[in-house]
Amino acid sequence: MNNVNYPNGRKSSWSASLASAGGRGMDLEHDINVTNGFYLSEDKAVIHKKPTPVTIVKVDYPKRSAARITEAYFKVPSTTDYNGIYKSRYLDFEAKECASETSFPLKSLHPHQIRHLKDVIRHGAVAFLLIRFTKLDETYYVKAEDLLAFIEKEERHSVPHRWFAENGFLVPYNYLKPVDYLKVVDRLIAEGD
Amino acid sequence: MNNVNYPNGRKSSWSASLASAGGRGMDLEHDINVTNGFYLSEDKAVIHKKPTPVTIVKVDYPKRSAARITEAYFKVPSTTDYNGIYKSRYLDFEAKECASETSFPLKSLHPHQIRHLKDVIRHGAVAFLLIRFTKLDETYYVKAEDLLAFIEKEERHSVPHRWFAENGFLVPYNYLKPVDYLKVVDRLIAEGD
Repeated sequence: MNNVNYPNGRKSSWSASLASAGGRGMDLEHDINVTNGFYLSEDKAVIHKKPTPVTIVKVDYPKRSAARITEAYFKVPSTTDYNGIYKSRYLDFEAKECASETSFPLKSLHPHQIRHLKDVIRHGAVAFLLIRFTKLDETYYVKAEDLLAFIEKEERHSVPHRWFAENGFLVPYNYLKPVDYLKVVDRLIAEGD
Repeated sequence: MNNVNYPNGRKSSWSASLASAGGRGMDLEHDINVTNGFYLSEDKAVIHKKPTPVTIVKVDYPKRSAARITEAYFKVPSTTDYNGIYKSRYLDFEAKECASETSFPLKSLHPHQIRHLKDVIRHGAVAFLLIRFTKLDETYYVKAEDLLAFIEKEERHSVPHRWFAENGFLVPYNYLKPVDYLKVVDRLIAEGD
């Protein structure tokens, strides 16, 4: 089997990843990027991850070589990580991995991201979250409206796994599209949602 | 008059900027960010600039303080800089300043950005470019379709200023919205475009 280099610098092998949970051992961000790349290649949708926001403090401009950033800091994101267009609709979503098997801690969503989701919903977006329970190997599609309603109503700091099973949609997996979330979008559009 | 600190670290003063060309002496990116901030505050549209894409190579994790990126490089952007939602429509655009008074050099658009604009047009986006001729103090809204058609048809490496005057729309300026491009979008929507 061949070794594969992933953009984040990790090495993996197809044999190892196929052995663990049908290839889904890799991280959610990677799986979504692969899926988006496939959607783009089949001209189904144009959805990209936004670059990681950083504050750049110092840059060196060496002669005859590329500018080099020598001091920078991670910034709290002011929006969600993913957006784009599908069937003329504006899509916007955030993706989070969850290490717990029992509940998703709400502190992993930044207040900015929650405000941003409310903003785009008011303007007509298809807005959602992809939450992966890594130990259970389940990725849920949750309508942002539903999660925001839960947050407003409940006093809890986390969302029980059962809530996702009841209110979310399990995202189908396949080899080319490891997180085939547009299947869920299609279903919701067909239901007039 | 008060001094104002801009996010990019430059200092300016309102008095100085008001003296030059009605406050439009500042850079296009800044003006668009101010405009987008105003659109967001009046709940008219949700449009953000994407973060500058960088490849992060080394990060220090000092005890008791924020992670510090010590080596990173600028990446060629794979999409345009701005996107968002307005009246349920997906908006996507690129903004460029042009120092020449006579023509806009096409080399300032990356091939990736041109491909991205074609992609989103096929899927139904409102796609455009904002081109500012800095010396003339004119900012044009150009439909991406029109500029792409010019690029396909002509052999030129630059687009004459006259072409913008004939095919583009001058973007109105006002104090709160220095690049009020949604005015042009509204006009095009009203004309059924």
